[in-house]
Amino acid sequence: MSNVLNDNVRKALTAGNLAHLVTLNPDGSPQVSLVWVGLEDDEIVCAHLGSRKKLKNISQDSRVALSMQTGGKNAFGLDNYLVISGRARITEGGAPELLQRLAYVYIGPGVDFPPDKSSPGYITRITAEHIYGVGPWNAPS
Amino acid sequence: MSNVLNDNVRKALTAGNLAHLVTLNPDGSPQVSLVWVGLEDDEIVCAHLGSRKKLKNISQDSRVALSMQTGGKNAFGLDNYLVISGRARITEGGAPELLQRLAYVYIGPGVDFPPDKSSPGYITRITAEHIYGVGPWNAPS
Repeated sequence: MSNVLNDNVRKALTAGNLAHLVTLNPDGSPQVSLVWVGLEDDEIVCAHLGSRKKLKNISQDSRVALSMQTGGKNAFGLDNYLVISGRARITEGGAPELLQRLAYVYIGPGVDFPPDKSSPGYITRITAEHIYGVGPWNAPS
Repeated sequence: MSNVLNDNVRKALTAGNLAHLVTLNPDGSPQVSLVWVGLEDDEIVCAHLGSRKKLKNISQDSRVALSMQTGGKNAFGLDNYLVISGRARITEGGAPELLQRLAYVYIGPGVDFPPDKSSPGYITRITAEHIYGVGPWNAPS
């Protein structure tokens, strides 16, 4: 298990929290999209049915950040959130299966998603390097 | 009024939705933090009591992105969200007053925030250049 992905981080990453995925455009400016995420071993995974801008961005610069609101507040009344910076890689295929697995978490049990599973799509796989934000992320787990 | 900030965008930006603010680190990698936002004329504003990493980042590279979940879903069952890319500038002072104004939206009426208003702080002012995401952002307003 990756050292940075402690139990609290893994719990946040598998609880159905929407993730804001930041990639870098060719000119270096940031690009953001909302994604469903899950874990596969030490990697954070998200699925894409089509060829999207973020996939092209990652293929040119693998540096990404991922942030999510995780519920709860700190002692100052500010909302907890988790940010992960790291490196991403893309693999082909498996997107409908991953989306179906994540849909059970993000939509609910018994849902059929995506309706059309014919496109193999792509999976983005992120290796976390740094954890920050507001929450129990650095606490012993 | 800025052309890109149509009424639906302005409504999302003033509804108490938490914003994920992306700045660029000196090495070009993305940095994210959660902020409260408001509008002042054509600029999106957020306040900082201390000198933070994101302020240094903005002073070196003004390109930012800001994303927020806005509630509701689209026809495919995917969550609405708003992303704004643009340029940021920083002004000194006024942070406690802006935080107090935003606290009424983000925490509730009658709240006293921040408790300590002695630090003038900084305000980040963002000029929006592009709007994207999932939602009624490009609809006529």
